[in-house]
Amino acid sequence: MFVRNAWYVAATPDEIDKDDRPLGRTVCGAAMVFFRGPDGAVTAVEDFCPHRGAPLSLGRVVEGKLVCGYHGLEMGCDGKVVAMPGQRVRGFPPIRHYPTVEQSGFIWVWPGDAEKADASKIHPLPWADNPECAFGGGLFHVKCDYRLMIDNLMDLTHETYVHSTSIGQKEIDEATPVTKVEGDEVVLSRFMNGIIAPPFWQLALRSHELPDHAPVDRWQICRFSPPSHVMIEVGVALAGQGGFDADPKVKAAATVVDFLTPETETTMWYFWGMARHFRPQDKALTAQIREGQSKIFAEDLAMLERQQCNLSAQPERKLLMLNIDSGGVQSRKVIERLMAAEQS
Amino acid sequence: MFVRNAWYVAATPDEIDKDDRPLGRTVCGAAMVFFRGPDGAVTAVEDFCPHRGAPLSLGRVVEGKLVCGYHGLEMGCDGKVVAMPGQRVRGFPPIRHYPTVEQSGFIWVWPGDAEKADASKIHPLPWADNPECAFGGGLFHVKCDYRLMIDNLMDLTHETYVHSTSIGQKEIDEATPVTKVEGDEVVLSRFMNGIIAPPFWQLALRSHELPDHAPVDRWQICRFSPPSHVMIEVGVALAGQGGFDADPKVKAAATVVDFLTPETETTMWYFWGMARHFRPQDKALTAQIREGQSKIFAEDLAMLERQQCNLSAQPERKLLMLNIDSGGVQSRKVIERLMAAEQS
Amino acid sequence: MFVRNAWYVAATPDEIDKDDRPLGRTVCGAAMVFFRGPDGAVTAVEDFCPHRGAPLSLGRVVEGKLVCGYHGLEMGCDGKVVAMPGQRVRGFPPIRHYPTVEQSGFIWVWPGDAEKADASKIHPLPWADNPECAFGGGLFHVKCDYRLMIDNLMDLTHETYVHSTSIGQKEIDEATPVTKVEGDEVVLSRFMNGIIAPPFWQLALRSHELPDHAPVDRWQICRFSPPSHVMIEVGVALAGQGGFDADPKVKAAATVVDFLTPETETTMWYFWGMARHFRPQDKALTAQIREGQSKIFAEDLAMLERQQCNLSAQPERKLLMLNIDSGGVQSRKVIERLMAAEQS
Repeated sequence: MFVRNAWYVAATPDEIDKDDRPLGRTVCGAAMVFFRGPDGAVTAVEDFCPHRGAPLSLGRVVEGKLVCGYHGLEMGCDGKVVAMPGQRVRGFPPIRHYPTVEQSGFIWVWPGDAEKADASKIHPLPWADNPECAFGGGLFHVKCDYRLMIDNLMDLTHETYVHSTSIGQKEIDEATPVTKVEGDEVVLSRFMNGIIAPPFWQLALRSHELPDHAPVDRWQICRFSPPSHVMIEVGVALAGQGGFDADPKVKAAATVVDFLTPETETTMWYFWGMARHFRPQDKALTAQIREGQSKIFAEDLAMLERQQCNLSAQPERKLLMLNIDSGGVQSRKVIERLMAAEQS
Repeated sequence: MFVRNAWYVAATPDEIDKDDRPLGRTVCGAAMVFFRGPDGAVTAVEDFCPHRGAPLSLGRVVEGKLVCGYHGLEMGCDGKVVAMPGQRVRGFPPIRHYPTVEQSGFIWVWPGDAEKADASKIHPLPWADNPECAFGGGLFHVKCDYRLMIDNLMDLTHETYVHSTSIGQKEIDEATPVTKVEGDEVVLSRFMNGIIAPPFWQLALRSHELPDHAPVDRWQICRFSPPSHVMIEVGVALAGQGGFDADPKVKAAATVVDFLTPETETTMWYFWGMARHFRPQDKALTAQIREGQSKIFAEDLAMLERQQCNLSAQPERKLLMLNIDSGGVQSRKVIERLMAAEQS
Repeated sequence: MFVRNAWYVAATPDEIDKDDRPLGRTVCGAAMVFFRGPDGAVTAVEDFCPHRGAPLSLGRVVEGKLVCGYHGLEMGCDGKVVAMPGQRVRGFPPIRHYPTVEQSGFIWVWPGDAEKADASKIHPLPWADNPECAFGGGLFHVKCDYRLMIDNLMDLTHETYVHSTSIGQKEIDEATPVTKVEGDEVVLSRFMNGIIAPPFWQLALRSHELPDHAPVDRWQICRFSPPSHVMIEVGVALAGQGGFDADPKVKAAATVVDFLTPETETTMWYFWGMARHFRPQDKALTAQIREGQSKIFAEDLAMLERQQCNLSAQPERKLLMLNIDSGGVQSRKVIERLMAAEQS
C-alpha cells in the first residue's frame, strides 16, 4: 500500500537523455516506461505492450513515439497506440498513462488517478533555480521499505554510529530533538552549540575559508513532506554568531535532499543529494562533496537492508517508539492518514 | 500442463558421449537422467535413486548400468535395480522409465504413458540423412513458457525489430501472411517478391556464387507440429525464377529447425539449427552460419524472458490476437486440444 | 522442527575473537548473536535490537556490552538493555538470551528453555584436553536438512563411491555393519580385517613409521549422540595384532568429529574435524590431515545438496531403509522421540 495520488521523483533527466532508449522503472509497484514525446516533454506509460505483453522499455524512441522492440507497435505519449505495421490500430486498447512533469532537475510522476494530478503541487525546490546554490546527487537502489529510510533520516542520532568517521559526533546524542507536526509536514530540529565540527563539516569550513577547529554552532532541521521527501537543513556557524540565522560569511550551510520513492513494498529508489549555499561555482567541490556523501549514504544501506530482513522475519513484533523516533513515527502517521483518505 | 504423450527432443548425442557421466535434464517438469545401456542405445529413467533419493545424474555409467554416486546402487535401462553391494535387490521398487529413441541426430523422449509410445511417430527430418544437406545448431536454456517461443517463431514480423541487422527488413511487415491449419499442424506463409536481400541472405547468395544485390523473391513458410516443433522453410531466389520452386542453381534455401522442449511451466530448452540445401560440404560455411544464427537467436532471449516476467506479473491480462499472431494462436489451440484429449 | 532443549555447537572461539565484532549465526531457526561479556565469557542473545529491529550483529562489542550499530543501544549479556544515549532504558523490553558455554574448544548454545539448560550435559570430548591427542577441523555451510548428514555419517558405505580416491575401498561394501541402540545413542560398527589400507590411511601409517602396504585390520565405529553429534572411531592396525584394541605402536587411530548444527529446516552448519591419537606434536601433519579431510568432506556436499533438492521436490516419496541405513534410521528415531517428548 502506498499513497498514490502524489508526485514522486521517478528519475533524473540524464537517465532518459543518453540515447534513443526509453527508461523502464517501477514506482509504487507499477512498471512504467519513461520517454520524451514529440514536443520533448517527458511522459510515462505502462511498461507493457498491449499487443503481446512485451516490455516497451526494450524498444526505441523514434520521433517522440515509443516503438516496441518486438513487433514495431508505436505507442504514443498518452498510452494510445499510434500505429503498427500492417495493422489498423483504432480498436487497440490503450495502456495506462501516468502524469509526468520535469521540474527542478527531476522527473516527477503521479501513480494515482490521472485526473487528480495537479503540477502546482509538486514539491518546491527553491535552491534548484537559485544561482547562489550548487547541487550534486545520485541514485541508490535499496532493498527496504521506504519508510525505514524515512525513520533513518528523521532521526539523525544514527550518525554517531553509522557515520562515525564523517558527520557523526557524540554531541548529537546529547542534544534532545524537538518534533513538530505542521499540517502534513513533520519537522524535527536539533541544535548543538559550541562544539567542534566533525570531519565533513571541517572540510566545508575550509572550503569556505573559515577556521576548521574553532567552536561552532551546528544544526539539523529535518522536514518530512508527503509522500516521501525529506529535506534536511544542515550546517555549522562560528559559535555565538546566530547559528542557523548567522551571516552567510561565518557559516557553511546546505540542504540534504532525499527523495524516497517506493519501488515495491520492500524495495525503493533513493535519490539523494546536497544543495549547498556556499561556493556554488566550485565544481571540484561539488564533486568532492558528492563523493563523500555517496560513501556516507552507502553506510546506511547494509543496516537498512538487514533491518528489513529482521522485520520481514518477525512482522508482528512491536518496536519501540522513543523521543528520537518521533520524527519517523509522526511521518508514518501522516502517510497512514493520507492512505486512509485515498481508500475512502 | 503439457502434452505428455508425444516425442520431445531431449538432448543431442554429444551431450552424453563425452565421458562416463550420464546427463541429467528436466523435460515437461520431470527430472530425467539419460545414459547409454549395454547395447549402446540411449535410455532415460527418473533422476532419483530409489534407495535414498540421490540424483542418479551424479553417478557414473559402467558397462551400460548407471551406478549411483552415493552408495553404488546399479540402475538398469528400464528403471529396475540391477544390483547393490551387499544387498538383495529383488524387492527394490523400480523407478520410472521413459521411452527414448536416438534418431536423425537427436535424442527423443516420451514423457507420457510408456505403453503409448510409438517410435514411428517421431517427427521426420528428411534433411538429416540427406547428403545434399548440411546441419549446424545449438542449445539455449530460456526462462520463458515454451509457447512464447512458438508465438515468436510463428510470426516472423519480429525479425524487422529484433533482428534488424541480419534478417529483418521492412518488406516483412508489408507482406500479409497466410495461415492454414492442416490437421494438427499449422502453416504460416509469407512471400516477398522483387526485394533486396538482407545481410544474412546476401551472405548465403555469395556462398552460392549468386549476385548478392540483385532483386530476389524471398519466402518464409513456418510449420508448427505438435508437441512443440517449428520448422521454417526460408530462402531467396533470383527474382522471377519461381521463388520457392525455382531451380536450386538460382536460389539459396534452408530449413530453420526449432525444437522447443518445455523444462518447467516457465522455462524451456531451445534446440535450434539450420539445415541448408546448398554447399553441404563447406564446413567453414556451416560454422559461419551457425555462429550467425546463434547471435540472431540470442537476440530473442532477452525479449522473451522479459515478456515472461510481464505476463507472470499480470496473468489475467488479455493480449491482442492480430492476423500476424494467427500462427501462434492456432498452434496454441492445437496444444490445448491435445492436452484436453489426454485429460479425458 | 528441532530438538531445542539440547546443547549444539554454535561456533569456534576464533570466530568471535578476531576483533570487536560480534558473530551473527542462526541455530535451529533462531537468529542469534554471540559475543564475550565483561568477564570474557561467551553469551548469545537474539540478533534483533529491541529499539527498531536492527541486527545487533552489525554492532560492536565495547567493554563486554554489545553496542547496536544503528542508534547505540547497549545490550547486556542477558538480553537486558544496559543503556542508550539520551534514554532511560528501565522499561525497555529484554530480548531473548540463550545459555552459552565455551568448552572443549567449541562454543555451545542451548536454543530451548533456558531454565532447563545444564552445562554438565554438554557432550564430553575426552580428547580435547588430552596432550596425547591433536585436533584439526573446519566449518562448512551446507544446504541440506542436517538429518541427511546424519544418514551420511552413520553409513560409511558411501566412502567407496564418494571418496573413492582417499578413504573408499571395495571392502567397506563387503563388511556387514552391526547397529546397536544404547539409550539415546546409536552405534554402527564395521570391521575389515587383513586388507590393504586406502591412500589416506597409508599416509597415516607412514606418519606413524609403519609399513603402508602391509595387511591391516581396519575399523569404523560411528556413534550418534543427540541432538546431532556423530563421533567416529576410525583406524588401521597391522593385521592380527588386535585391531581396534591393538597396541598404539602398531596402529594409527583417530576420532572423526562431526557436529551437525541445524540452521534452518534445509540448511546446516557442519563443524568437522579429526582428533588423532598419534604424533600429536606434529603440526605439519595436523595441517596436512586437515586439508585432506576438508577435500574429502567437500565431496559430500554436492551430493547432499542435490539429494535435498530431490527430496524437497517429492516430499511424500518413500525411501528404502536397508541394513546399511539402520544407523541413520535409528538416529532419526531418537530425534523423533526427543522432539515428541518436548512437545508434550
